[in-house]
This record gives sequence, structure tokens and C-alpha cells, in this order.
Amino acid sequence: MPLILAVNAGSSSLKSSIYRRGTLELVATSSASLKTEQERSKVIINDSPPTYEAEIRDHASALAHFLHNVKLDDEVVNVCHRVVHGGDYQQPIVITKDSYEHIEALSALAPLHNKAALTVMDAALKLLPNAQSIAFFDTTFHRTIPPHISTYAIDPTIARKKGLKKYGFHGLSYAYILRQVSTYLQKRPEDLSLIILHLGSGASICAVQNGRSLDTSMEFTPLSGLPGATRSGSVDPSLIFHYSSKVDGVKKDDKGTLGSGLHVTEAEEILNKQAGWNALAGTKDFARVTREAAEGNEQCALAFRLFVDRILNYIGAYHLKLHGSVDAVVFAGGIGENSAGLRKTIGEHIRCLGFPDVDGQRNERAGKSSEVVIDISNDTKRVLVCHTDEQQEMAKQCEGNVEFWQRD
Amino acid sequence: MPLILAVNAGSSSLKSSIYRRGTLELVATSSASLKTEQERSKVIINDSPPTYEAEIRDHASALAHFLHNVKLDDEVVNVCHRVVHGGDYQQPIVITKDSYEHIEALSALAPLHNKAALTVMDAALKLLPNAQSIAFFDTTFHRTIPPHISTYAIDPTIARKKGLKKYGFHGLSYAYILRQVSTYLQKRPEDLSLIILHLGSGASICAVQNGRSLDTSMEFTPLSGLPGATRSGSVDPSLIFHYSSKVDGVKKDDKGTLGSGLHVTEAEEILNKQAGWNALAGTKDFARVTREAAEGNEQCALAFRLFVDRILNYIGAYHLKLHGSVDAVVFAGGIGENSAGLRKTIGEHIRCLGFPDVDGQRNERAGKSSEVVIDISNDTKRVLVCHTDEQQEMAKQCEGNVEFWQRD
Repeated sequence: MPLILAVNAGSSSLKSSIYRRGTLELVATSSASLKTEQERSKVIINDSPPTYEAEIRDHASALAHFLHNVKLDDEVVNVCHRVVHGGDYQQPIVITKDSYEHIEALSALAPLHNKAALTVMDAALKLLPNAQSIAFFDTTFHRTIPPHISTYAIDPTIARKKGLKKYGFHGLSYAYILRQVSTYLQKRPEDLSLIILHLGSGASICAVQNGRSLDTSMEFTPLSGLPGATRSGSVDPSLIFHYSSKVDGVKKDDKGTLGSGLHVTEAEEILNKQAGWNALAGTKDFARVTREAAEGNEQCALAFRLFVDRILNYIGAYHLKLHGSVDAVVFAGGIGENSAGLRKTIGEHIRCLGFPDVDGQRNERAGKSSEVVIDISNDTKRVLVCHTDEQQEMAKQCEGNVEFWQRD
Repeated sequence: MPLILAVNAGSSSLKSSIYRRGTLELVATSSASLKTEQERSKVIINDSPPTYEAEIRDHASALAHFLHNVKLDDEVVNVCHRVVHGGDYQQPIVITKDSYEHIEALSALAPLHNKAALTVMDAALKLLPNAQSIAFFDTTFHRTIPPHISTYAIDPTIARKKGLKKYGFHGLSYAYILRQVSTYLQKRPEDLSLIILHLGSGASICAVQNGRSLDTSMEFTPLSGLPGATRSGSVDPSLIFHYSSKVDGVKKDDKGTLGSGLHVTEAEEILNKQAGWNALAGTKDFARVTREAAEGNEQCALAFRLFVDRILNYIGAYHLKLHGSVDAVVFAGGIGENSAGLRKTIGEHIRCLGFPDVDGQRNERAGKSSEVVIDISNDTKRVLVCHTDEQQEMAKQCEGNVEFWQRD
């Protein structure tokens, strides 16, 4: 039976799922957390209890370990890879020498983001030499953002040459959610306008107008927009130079010019890896931030309120740009799906836009529900929770029979 | 008769106004555009026709020229200086050696903004040795922004040490507008919630809740937020490194690392001086951008629509944060006061928030009106135009009898 393998590589994780072609039945799945030298990697295959594997040190060995266990190599005909930054790619692309090199070059736009995917591609090409590998991009969903929203007010010649514009990310998740909400509300995607919140350790928001991305909070790279677990989100463009001009650690040049010793990777490292609620509240775990905020921890309360504030900035902006015609606000991602407290708080704030009260009981139960879409509101303007699934989205698109969001 | 001199120094301009203490009657006023070596500076004193002065080359000579003409030196008892970045100053401050040095040190936070004011202070101390000089800060009005809005999701120790937070700017203008709208609507400032658009070659927006600044679009420096004539506004924090990694002109270091040759002043220079609608549409004059956009110029149309898009982001966000309770949207600043076309476009977009149709005739006439506040709407939710006046605000605060926005 022909199978599709969909792999989703984070900087220190690998999720792999195998689907049957045609039915998209989930045949096997694995989630691996890659650890540092001192620890063993945690691996969960299907519903088995987690194991801690010493031999898994990187994405390649995690993939090899999964394939070795499920023994389905011969039947895999397609391997789908999630790639964060797709530059101007308008469609998924079959991996060839040329396209591989192009994706590699795009790493310069997002040095912290495309590398893991390239490593997994290398591994898959070696482990499954007869399967066709395809790259799916988080940017593709956002190719419908109009120029006056995607353009920066900078020199257009340099912008064009360097590819400096709003690309947007989390597109596979948004495409999946749009499809599921369309089914749930029994409304065609082209008749749907949504504000979708993909809130995880990386978080973004998307305004969907008539089934197309109109605007989104991540821009040129995933750094901008909302803060995340270790990511600052948008800051004043001047900030990083002043941040790193500190005497204790960061260099000054011969003339003592502030921040001049700063390299791209250092600046992106600071704002991507040494910021976010981990920097503010001392933990990457947003559930803990929420819990300790409720218990009176001031830094956690600040981090929680700051996150709410930034989310409201985008909901308010997108509600206005959608002319107030919003079918639903949809929560997704690890935090969006699990934090009843955050949904309650946001729900209270958006009532003034005509959204109904969030139903307390259904809101509490939403994270544990096995339904894909859970309505926590009941009204013409809905508040929904959606369990997103980027691997399934890739498998679905790979089958080529659902292309509704690929219209031109 | 005791007089107050209020001076407002831009990077290449100086506005000076002399008021009578007590009545705040305007006694004399001057506006000087400082030119490059090749040109003569344009000076207008009171209502006289402009003159073109060869000897005026800087802020000091512009002030000297004004004082020489009006011959009121002996009666000036206070000199009010507008200073853009006031750091953590909570009040205006009398210029002493200490406070002068502190303001000088704040220049590091905004290298392009405080310098002109310091030059004029030097000149005033020499030209009017017996008058008391006082610094008024654009940041002071925003000291009420709560921590969860003013804080960045970055290391709090470094943020505290370096002063990295949202300060906000255009505060003298916002204070003036709040006072005038309060009088016009016959509502106490503490009962007023406004969304104020100060749109000029530098542009920002402020959410005022119960007479206090709740949030504003400029952040750590005036660079962030809306684009301006030559300013990018907010961009992805990664962008500048990629912008300046170009081979044609900007240096790479020994290892060819992107953007590593970039200095604070260069980066701020690019985003503050080589961007904005001048970069996009080839003119600093927004009236021309609007006119040529209407005539079919594509780059001008893009610049106009981009500006509208970014303004709507903030109006939508602030409307939500004010829980939909907004007494008025107020247009001010060179563009806000003069661009009927921009007001019409924004007015159409915000109707879905419950704002009334903008009155076409009154909208067209607003720029030419001699009234301070012009209502272009007539409804419980108002759309107003306010002719702002930062010099008068300083003179008023200098008198010390209107301190309503200085409550704690």
C-alpha cells in the first residue's frame, strides 16, 4: 500500500507521521525531542510510552530510528518536509538538486529556521532513495497578502534585490485550520473570514479574508510580531544596537561605537533565543507562566498581560481590516489549544467587538476534546478552538485533491 | 511685560514663539527652514513675507536672527525648549549643568533627535543669560503607559540597565490636543478617551484613556510605529542586517559576515533618513504622494495605501484596547490637518467601528479653518481635526496653571 511520510523538523524536535495514500489514515507517528549531549532524547512512537534513546542525537538519527521501528520503508512513496522560509515559492516543490540549493540559499533569510529541514531532507534522501521528497513552505499560504500590506517603507530597489518584505509563517497550520473550520461551519473557504491565532512557543496571528491570507503578524522572518517562549517579537528597530552595546560582554569596536561588533547571527540569536517569556518570567512553559501569574508572581503576571496586550493589538487591527466581518476567532497551537485561561481573558476583551461570552465549561474542556474543531461560543460570530496538524496538511496537499487555497 | 519664549527645534528647522505671561497672547513668532550650504535659509517672522537669509546656517543663528528682529530680549523671563527624548524624566526640568548633561546623555538613545535641542539651549543660554531655560519632553505625556504595554519581552535586567522600553513621543502635541478637545467637547480630560493621530513627516498615534496615555505607536525611539517622510516605521527586527549586507557599498567583516560592519548611527540613518514615502514614492511631500496616487502613479498609490494600512493597524488595536469606548478620533499634524483625502479614506474604514460618515464639505474646509478644533462628523463618536501647537503647550505648562495631565 502506498504511504506518505510527513516530517516536521523544529530546531530541537522531529515529528514524523505516516499516512495511507487515498484515505489519509494515520498509520504510524512519532515525536522526538532532541536533547543536549548530557541527556537522552525522548521518543514517542504511536501510543507507546516514551523511551529515552542515547543513540538519537540529531534529526537524521531520529528519522532513522522511527523508520527502523515501523519497518514501512518500502511502501513510502512521498516524503513531505515542512520548510519554514520559502522565499517567493508560490507552491510546494519537489526536491531536486536545484530546489535543494535554492532552499539552502533561503537559509540566509532565516538562519535559525531552515537548517533543521535541510538536515532531514538529506537524511530522507539517503534512507528512502526511491521516495519522492517534496518541500512544503510556511510562507506559501501568505502569497495572497496584497503589496500595500507586505511592502516595507524602504528603498524598493534594495527591497526587491534582497527580498525584504512580509512573507508570513505558520502557513501550513493556517491552511489546515481554514479547511477544518470550513467543514465545521459548513461554509466554503472563499466565504470565510477568520482571525486565526496560532499560539505556541512560536506564535503568530493571521487575518483570513474570503479564504485568503490578508495579513499576518510574522513578517520578513518569524522574529517579528508576537513574543514567544524565547523570542522577543516586534521591537523598535533601534533596540538591538542599544541592547548589545552593554559593557559587560558585548564588544565595542576600536572607536567605541555602540553595537558595532554585532553580527546578524548574534543579534538574531539574542532576540530569537534569549528573549520571550523565558527571559521575562524564567520559564518557556506558558502553562507555568499562567499558573504562577495567578499565584501572584509579578514577573509571570507581567509576561501574561504583555502577551495578551500584543495579541489584542493584532485582533483589533485585523477586525478593522476585515471591516468587522469576522466569522470566527480561532485558537490553535500548543497554547491556543490548551490555555483555557488565555482564551477566557481574550474572550472577555473581544466582547466589545460583538463576540459572545466564551462558554466556561466548554472552554475548560476544549484542550482535552478529541474533536478537531470545538465551538466555545455559539453565535453568528464564533470563538473556536482547532487542534492543528501540519503533517496532515502536508499529506493532504501531497495527495493534490484539496487545493482550494492555491487559487490565484 | 514678562514674556515666555518657546522654541521647537527640528533637525533642519526652528520654530520660535513669544507669548505674554498671564494671557498667553502671541507676541511674535518665527519659522526658519535651515538649508544646506548652497541655499539660503527661509525665514518667516510674524506675518511678513518670507525672507531668504544667507547668514542663517544653523539653529543658533536662526534664534539670534529672530531675537535681533523682535528686540524683546530684556523681557523674556522663560525659554521653553522642546526635547524629543526625555528618558525617564517625569516632568519638565529647569536647565542646569546637571540636567543639561543628563539630556546630552539621553542623545545616545536617540542620536538623531536630541542634538538640535541641545544646540538651541546653548544658544539661548548665551543670548538670554538672565532668562530661565526649561526643557519639555515629548516622552513625559506617556509616563502613564502601564508596564505590560511599555515592557519588551527581553532580559529585564538589561532592559532596566539600558532603559529599553516604550517611551512614546509627540507628547507635547498630544497634551495640547487633549486640552483643546476637552474644551471643545466640554468634557473633563479624565472623562475623555481618544485616538489621536499626529501625522506629519514624523507620524504617531496615541490611545488616550481617561485623559492618560495608554499606548502609542512610537516606542523606544521615534523610529518605530508608522512610516514617515524619510522613516521606515516598524520593520522586522532582522531586516536592517539583511538590508545592509548588500555588496554594493556596505562592508562585510573579515569573515564576510552579513551586516557586521554596521554601526548604530548607520543603521538608524538608513531607517530614519533613507526610507519612508520619500524612498517609496520619491517625494517627502505627502500632498504630492496623494495627488499623484490619484493620477495613477503606482508607487505613490502604494505609498498612500501602505500608510493607510499602518494607520488602521493602530486605530483597530487602540479601539479594542479602549473597549470600544472612544469619544473621538482626532487628526492633527501637517498631514492630519491638511490631507482631506487621507481623512476621507480613514473615515470610510472606521465606519464599521461605529464612527459616522465624515462630512464632505467640512472635511474639505478643515485645513483652512482658523478654529483650533473642527468637528467633521457630528455624532456621539466624533471625528475631529485639531490644529496642534507644541510651542503654545510649552508656554501653557510653563505658566504652571494647567497641569491636568501631570497627575500621578
